[in-house]
Amino acid sequence: MGLYPEIIEKLIEKLKKLPGIGPKSAERIVYYLIHCSEDEVVSLGETLVFLKRQVKLCKKCFNFTEKDLCNICLDEKRKNIICVVEEVKDLISIEKTNFKGRYHVLWGRISMLDNTSPEQLKILQLIERIKDEKIEEIIIATNPTIEGENTAAYISEILKKIGIKHSRLAIGLPVGSELEYIDSQTLKKAIEGRKEL
Amino acid sequence: MGLYPEIIEKLIEKLKKLPGIGPKSAERIVYYLIHCSEDEVVSLGETLVFLKRQVKLCKKCFNFTEKDLCNICLDEKRKNIICVVEEVKDLISIEKTNFKGRYHVLWGRISMLDNTSPEQLKILQLIERIKDEKIEEIIIATNPTIEGENTAAYISEILKKIGIKHSRLAIGLPVGSELEYIDSQTLKKAIEGRKEL
Repeated sequence: MGLYPEIIEKLIEKLKKLPGIGPKSAERIVYYLIHCSEDEVVSLGETLVFLKRQVKLCKKCFNFTEKDLCNICLDEKRKNIICVVEEVKDLISIEKTNFKGRYHVLWGRISMLDNTSPEQLKILQLIERIKDEKIEEIIIATNPTIEGENTAAYISEILKKIGIKHSRLAIGLPVGSELEYIDSQTLKKAIEGRKEL
Repeated sequence: MGLYPEIIEKLIEKLKKLPGIGPKSAERIVYYLIHCSEDEVVSLGETLVFLKRQVKLCKKCFNFTEKDLCNICLDEKRKNIICVVEEVKDLISIEKTNFKGRYHVLWGRISMLDNTSPEQLKILQLIERIKDEKIEEIIIATNPTIEGENTAAYISEILKKIGIKHSRLAIGLPVGSELEYIDSQTLKKAIEGRKEL
């Protein structure tokens, strides 16, 4: 016999599996839900199920979508510049900068640790797009981590062979940062990548 | 147009209302759910709804239950000592100590800040229980905070008038603590409450 009624124990177990939720948070959420109106809880439950049933990946860029193609791919005003990102959350971050190009989500990075090989990423699909669409430039926007850089290098090799213009996000000092607190790797890159004025 | 498909934005909004979940955690949970199997997500959604529909408050002690009375109230082996707590989570903490008495959940504490008056707590119901059941002792186990102490004092006044044996949890040094790091209020209480050996 658990300390709570069975249904509460069951929900706590399920909530604990979600990222960032530990046993204490799970308990707090259950207390909160019990205090909510039935409508609110039913609506949350339904939204969860709808999410799973409705969200698909865009057939072109692998962004989330409820249709075959995502809103960005359908937007004819977008420039034919493709920004290649590791995850959808990176796409969202770049969208917030008002970037008006297109995207391609790799769904990961080449990683020895996670056992992710290039074949598991959407790289082949990117090459197909270059053939099919009139792409002006590819911006490789993988993370500036070891794995992100390796992935960028791998893709860059392929793009060189294809002979398409491609670039990598600049590495340097974050806006508003203080040199005193910047790690030496970043500072070194910022010096190497200095811009003539 | 949000940055995500509408259903994702909707779920993020709903998740953000849960305690301890901010916009970033909500996003991470959505990513996680999209990767889960449909069965898992449906089961989570259903459990949420069942929770709300099945969980009630015990008619005697106001613990959570799926029936009219909770398992603790139904347990005839329990002693007729009632431990009065502010919230169900306090009951759970005390259960973990292997306490074999009964409980009474106040559902709050007398608080000027939250505008909680004694009438809003389950104090009247506690007095009713004292009349109906053969209670040997009441342990007032509200938190050792200002509001918890005030609530304890209020209940103690009533119990004195009724003339029933009642006690308060001991205040003192936590097991495994070091005097060096104990606040002086606690240390003062530990000295006041010292036990002869």
